[in-house]
Amino acid sequence: MAESPITPRGADFAQWYQDVVLQGDMAEPAEIVKGCMVIKPNGYAVWEVLQRELDGRFKATGHQNAYFPLLIPQSFLQKEAEHVEGFSPELAVVTVAGGKELEEPYVIRPTSETIIGHFFAKWIQSWRDLPMLMNQWANVIRWELRTRMFLRTTEFLWQEGHTAHSTHEEAMEEVLRMLDVYADVAENIMAMPVIRGQKTRAEKFAGAVKTYSIEAMMQNGLALQAGTSHDLGQNFGKAFDVKFQNKEGQLDYVWQTSWGVSTRLIGGLIMTHSDDKGLVLPPKLAPLKSVLVPIYRKEEERAAVLEAAHRIAKETGSKVDEREGHSPGAKFFHWERRGVPVVLELGPRDLASGKIVVKRRDTGAKEPVSQDGIAATLDATLEAIQTNLFASARERLKANTVWAASIGEVEEILKDASAEKGGGKFVMAHIKDDPECDARIKQFKATIRNMPLVDECDGPGKCIVTGETVPQRALIAKAY
Amino acid sequence: MAESPITPRGADFAQWYQDVVLQGDMAEPAEIVKGCMVIKPNGYAVWEVLQRELDGRFKATGHQNAYFPLLIPQSFLQKEAEHVEGFSPELAVVTVAGGKELEEPYVIRPTSETIIGHFFAKWIQSWRDLPMLMNQWANVIRWELRTRMFLRTTEFLWQEGHTAHSTHEEAMEEVLRMLDVYADVAENIMAMPVIRGQKTRAEKFAGAVKTYSIEAMMQNGLALQAGTSHDLGQNFGKAFDVKFQNKEGQLDYVWQTSWGVSTRLIGGLIMTHSDDKGLVLPPKLAPLKSVLVPIYRKEEERAAVLEAAHRIAKETGSKVDEREGHSPGAKFFHWERRGVPVVLELGPRDLASGKIVVKRRDTGAKEPVSQDGIAATLDATLEAIQTNLFASARERLKANTVWAASIGEVEEILKDASAEKGGGKFVMAHIKDDPECDARIKQFKATIRNMPLVDECDGPGKCIVTGETVPQRALIAKAY
Repeated sequence: MAESPITPRGADFAQWYQDVVLQGDMAEPAEIVKGCMVIKPNGYAVWEVLQRELDGRFKATGHQNAYFPLLIPQSFLQKEAEHVEGFSPELAVVTVAGGKELEEPYVIRPTSETIIGHFFAKWIQSWRDLPMLMNQWANVIRWELRTRMFLRTTEFLWQEGHTAHSTHEEAMEEVLRMLDVYADVAENIMAMPVIRGQKTRAEKFAGAVKTYSIEAMMQNGLALQAGTSHDLGQNFGKAFDVKFQNKEGQLDYVWQTSWGVSTRLIGGLIMTHSDDKGLVLPPKLAPLKSVLVPIYRKEEERAAVLEAAHRIAKETGSKVDEREGHSPGAKFFHWERRGVPVVLELGPRDLASGKIVVKRRDTGAKEPVSQDGIAATLDATLEAIQTNLFASARERLKANTVWAASIGEVEEILKDASAEKGGGKFVMAHIKDDPECDARIKQFKATIRNMPLVDECDGPGKCIVTGETVPQRALIAKAY
Repeated sequence: MAESPITPRGADFAQWYQDVVLQGDMAEPAEIVKGCMVIKPNGYAVWEVLQRELDGRFKATGHQNAYFPLLIPQSFLQKEAEHVEGFSPELAVVTVAGGKELEEPYVIRPTSETIIGHFFAKWIQSWRDLPMLMNQWANVIRWELRTRMFLRTTEFLWQEGHTAHSTHEEAMEEVLRMLDVYADVAENIMAMPVIRGQKTRAEKFAGAVKTYSIEAMMQNGLALQAGTSHDLGQNFGKAFDVKFQNKEGQLDYVWQTSWGVSTRLIGGLIMTHSDDKGLVLPPKLAPLKSVLVPIYRKEEERAAVLEAAHRIAKETGSKVDEREGHSPGAKFFHWERRGVPVVLELGPRDLASGKIVVKRRDTGAKEPVSQDGIAATLDATLEAIQTNLFASARERLKANTVWAASIGEVEEILKDASAEKGGGKFVMAHIKDDPECDARIKQFKATIRNMPLVDECDGPGKCIVTGETVPQRALIAKAY
């Protein structure tokens, strides 16, 4: 048997990840454009499903899509002090256009709060114009030093929601509503359990008052920030002079939010479910849910097998893999590496017995089932796979979440974890939202990921750094 | 009565166009980013319908979506001589990134033949890898001097198909197949008749062997190039060394195609159907097909009218305009300017008679119809509007297409046409595909638009410039 093209997770997790992406034909590095990748059709099709699921939920919650320019006058970023400080080191700058040096350079958007703020100021006059609920599907560029396909690339695809409200209370409802939308898609479509929580002040978005995130646990125990939702307060309202007349006739600055998820989600998906054989896709996210591999040795078996194959494929919405010059075994490996949830096998013996073999990608289990009612059987199998993937991931999250009562204990627990070797834990500890506490945790090459919204822990306790009483535990982990 | 916010077509066509875009809340100029616009929700929703219609057809013809980097190493554009010459003046160049001057600048893609050629060379080895059929939905930048919302903006959204084939014949089939897809969407979804044809050598895409286009006639008689499909021959194959082993075991360069349509289509849509009252959307392209305006004067009528309104809205998929503080008249203007194909009016008298008033956007006709079977009536009305819009546009195209037998006649016919005043004609004349003939026509501020594929004319004839015999008439017009 040929050596697997995929490095086992246990040997080298980072290499495994890259192998899964390449062997699943999801993406490849675009070495000629620093830190970029090409998203290949198999990867892009997953992104399309994610887009559809997210976009439907955005519209159902009253948002409309729009499109703002890619290029932002450099001076715009200066208008919000924290924002420019956070993004300046990562900007790509256009200095020449149409054959001429530009008087004012443009930056390629790293995010669009500034340019959208500019237009909100033109569009919003009165409380009647509020709330303004917009979303944009776009590419952005952040010049990152260390990149990894899907997880961190200099250019990435994302959606960015931008809303303006007449009260802080209403804005906060929006911030949490969209965080819930992200958690819903992560858990119920991607089968990836997440922990919703508030970022510490040190870790919040540059320009936000508060940032909320969803954090997922990868198979090596590392955390991945999978989505963020920001309470921007009146910061951008003041920076871009977005004022409205309230019901009392007074002028006030709007309260804004922004929220985004990106192609990074696909990286999280891969590191949540895939195995040493390659990609594993939850059925609800799989562009192709099942493939039927017809098996025949003799030419005289061919017509009968293919006829039944097409009948069943039509009934079940499966694709028949009729490629010539590939053995059934090669076909199985092909679809396995691409994460197709179910492969159906149909040979002459199955024809005789009225059966068909159903093979699950998640467990590897093979079972002959009756061809009668195969559509319903397949649906039930897909449902079972979706449920199993989520349950397994949740179980892993639970099993690798530990409590710590002292900073020494946190250090001890985090010591053995690394991106390459696994062994990472989510450590729940009482710790103060204070940049000095964040800095202390960073000494262990870890971060406070967030302060969970649903505290399933033991309520208030003493901060493991300062000794002060804090209301709840926070989530500490090494992260991507 | 207040003055209309829309300049009549007859007074100033260019101003009318801008007024329709602004009053329809489709887009607005982004004056702070040269030549760019913001696509507002009403405009973006139309783009989403267009995307869905196009994307479904691309997939049905075997194409897959992928995503390639926005930034292209500047040296890539140099590799194809005509390509660099055509695009160099329009490039936006990134010279600084991550706080440092770049060793090699990147250009923002004006189109992606070069970077995709680079990857095709990596992915294609054998005839078994062909055809490779890809599409990308993306933003591109071309630094244009004179811009106009949707029609020509420095940044625009588009799709670009890129395919590689093992024979020229197969590539040519692809070129014409995708041209037909464009014509299908233009005519059957946008209700915009188009003339399919081949561009002259002088007007082809920089780097192509042949370019085909669909050309539409705007209401002022000017032509709009609404989509192009290119036979790239082996030009990019040679420039990027995209070789494959053919069935005979020999190495050969692939034959490539590319094809694209953009947000420009929305400009064509507006100038085909809209009128002095504002935007007119063909039902198949309208994100919102019908709106129901409830009418009541007294508070005691309100509940009964709204109840019936919601019942009918549910049955028909209409939106009920329940906004407070707006008169029914203001609501009618609101939806009229936004191009909603049908407005339903429902008042207390309609309740008593079991009727509802159906108002068509295209003809302005108002008719009371029975509430029974309103869903079917509405469907039939939408169908009639779609048919009527296409028929009107085709009639206009026919009425304004004339034959010319001499260059003097061409000049005479084109003399009175201008973008602002209208009066443009499509002139069909025998003319040679020779850059000198193109140059002659340019003296009249017009161009040879294309050499129609279906020549409904009189076969061969003598070129009006050179006197040589040419196989068919070509389409000459002033154009956007």
